[in-house]
Amino acid sequence: MKICVLPGDGIGPEITAQAVRVLNSLDLKFEMEEALLGGGAVDATGNPYPEATQKLAREADAVLLGAVGGPQWDSLPREKRPERGLLGIRKDLNLFANLRPAILYPELANASTLKPEVVAGLDILIVRELTGDIYFGQPRGVREENGERVGFNTMVYSESEIRRIGHVAFQAAQKRNKKLCSVDKMNVLECTQLWRDVMIEIAHDYPDVELSHMLVDNAAMQLVKAPKQFDVMVTGNMFGDILSDEASMLTGSIGMLPSASLDDKNKGLYEPSHGSAPDIAGLGVANPLATILSAAMMLRYTFGLEEQALRVENAVKKVLAQGYRTGDIYERGTNKVGTREMGDAVLAALA
Amino acid sequence: MKICVLPGDGIGPEITAQAVRVLNSLDLKFEMEEALLGGGAVDATGNPYPEATQKLAREADAVLLGAVGGPQWDSLPREKRPERGLLGIRKDLNLFANLRPAILYPELANASTLKPEVVAGLDILIVRELTGDIYFGQPRGVREENGERVGFNTMVYSESEIRRIGHVAFQAAQKRNKKLCSVDKMNVLECTQLWRDVMIEIAHDYPDVELSHMLVDNAAMQLVKAPKQFDVMVTGNMFGDILSDEASMLTGSIGMLPSASLDDKNKGLYEPSHGSAPDIAGLGVANPLATILSAAMMLRYTFGLEEQALRVENAVKKVLAQGYRTGDIYERGTNKVGTREMGDAVLAALA
Ligand SMILES: [Mg+2]
Ligand SMILES: [Mg+2]
Repeated sequence: MKICVLPGDGIGPEITAQAVRVLNSLDLKFEMEEALLGGGAVDATGNPYPEATQKLAREADAVLLGAVGGPQWDSLPREKRPERGLLGIRKDLNLFANLRPAILYPELANASTLKPEVVAGLDILIVRELTGDIYFGQPRGVREENGERVGFNTMVYSESEIRRIGHVAFQAAQKRNKKLCSVDKMNVLECTQLWRDVMIEIAHDYPDVELSHMLVDNAAMQLVKAPKQFDVMVTGNMFGDILSDEASMLTGSIGMLPSASLDDKNKGLYEPSHGSAPDIAGLGVANPLATILSAAMMLRYTFGLEEQALRVENAVKKVLAQGYRTGDIYERGTNKVGTREMGDAVLAALA
Repeated sequence: MKICVLPGDGIGPEITAQAVRVLNSLDLKFEMEEALLGGGAVDATGNPYPEATQKLAREADAVLLGAVGGPQWDSLPREKRPERGLLGIRKDLNLFANLRPAILYPELANASTLKPEVVAGLDILIVRELTGDIYFGQPRGVREENGERVGFNTMVYSESEIRRIGHVAFQAAQKRNKKLCSVDKMNVLECTQLWRDVMIEIAHDYPDVELSHMLVDNAAMQLVKAPKQFDVMVTGNMFGDILSDEASMLTGSIGMLPSASLDDKNKGLYEPSHGSAPDIAGLGVANPLATILSAAMMLRYTFGLEEQALRVENAVKKVLAQGYRTGDIYERGTNKVGTREMGDAVLAALA
């Protein structure tokens, strides 16, 4: 079980260090090796996704990433920006399935802009296709027509692309509450009519999962109206971009949200949903829980270690119940701790 | 000032009647004529948008619509469904600008799933382009490629299409708080890069309006996080479909939301955002306020009667402050009334 660790920029190294401690405490036989990605990689090698990192990432079973980027790299040409490193590794490893949980721990319900009774205990998993759809479709561009500019992009999905993300979503639903909601706009878009048709075909392989369908505009409403109705949602790249961000904001605590991006052999890149927070980098105050929860996703989705994944997730629940909070989720009456102390608390809860 | 009144199906006739009473009480010289649209039109003529209605709608300056549809017409062939009447009249009149306010009156803040401090007093106007974008773009369909099906649709906007919806949005912002947020996905979609470019060009004509830009995934988040930051938002057909539905659900009281669809000469179709509610049709309990507020939008956008529009809107605020509520917005401690009594209350508040 080989893990490539990419601490990245900003708070990346601090939060990744805590997730590595957690993984090492589990008495599993992980081989871990660190490499550069993002701004630090540009500074050291001129390339945000250097060859040494490519080699390591390709050989590993899973990649644990902190975060990349910071203001000092914003003026670089586009191909040298830290974000290019992230796009580069996703493409290189063919990570087509993005898993974005939106979880709201009851202790943090106040952080949401929604009423506690609507969101406390929220636990949705959004499965977003990550390498197709209108974001990558051809033809695209701006052409001249009748003396004016006309902009165009192409939404496109093949049967096989839909099928492989569908299987990821059904299998994720099997590991959870066995409810899958596929989101499309089949009443208007033929491309998403095919999406729905293929989802219905695949469903025969998963008789234990209850498949439902929802139009994207209604899904955007239902996430606000009654988000707890959902277990797993699966949708294309663009709708998934919009809905996963909407869903994450329902929780009000982005510092808690992990993510995974998988290939077709369950090799995965695991990273927190939040950014590199350069403003608090190096201060030891960043919240490591999203990264620790990303490591738990790694245990579940790449290594199939469901029990160990649950152990880590329960340890996180326990430290929240015990009142430990980093600054981003602090409320009066709780115990404010730094990054390392939060890691200590999780390790203690695991012991 | 000629108004074509289309009561439609379900609760349509009841709620439209109250809006007509309100319009007639203003001592303006309206000519009103009624016609058939939707299921009732199919029953009477076999056509959901009959020729007599077409003639009247084309001659009128504005159209006031109740709602169309009901279960008794669901089994008809697609071209005879009541909804076809609505699509038909929108297309026939070339109504490219859809105006969807999301307003939450402080008295109704409890109806929202969001915390009162986040949404009380919310007043957003979403301007959605209604006749272009991926919903209408060519080419489209499902083709065979390498032995499998491939679904595709085309997002497309010409400069002139963007310009005309832009002007509507800037002018709407001038009538409000002079802040316009244009929503796109320019970092990934060339079509929406053109959208942003054209919005920036038009902005020169409106130096009194502050233009900002937001990516659609961030907009979906910000509507949940801090919806009161917005005044007017403008976006394409698909993003507008998703965001206007999300925004309407922030209010929790769809029975209060009007809408307008305009052509390039400010001729408009005005209708509540809610449906025909066949389950309560004819009972005299439906909420007529969204239709009355739609009539207020007609005064503002088609007839330029800002003062009269405000009079009607203030009358609605007053009846809410007085505690009048139809069943859909009723809470303990308020005064539950029927459709006609609510109309009476608005007329009294106007007097
Ligand atoms: Mg996004
Ligand atoms: Mg819609």
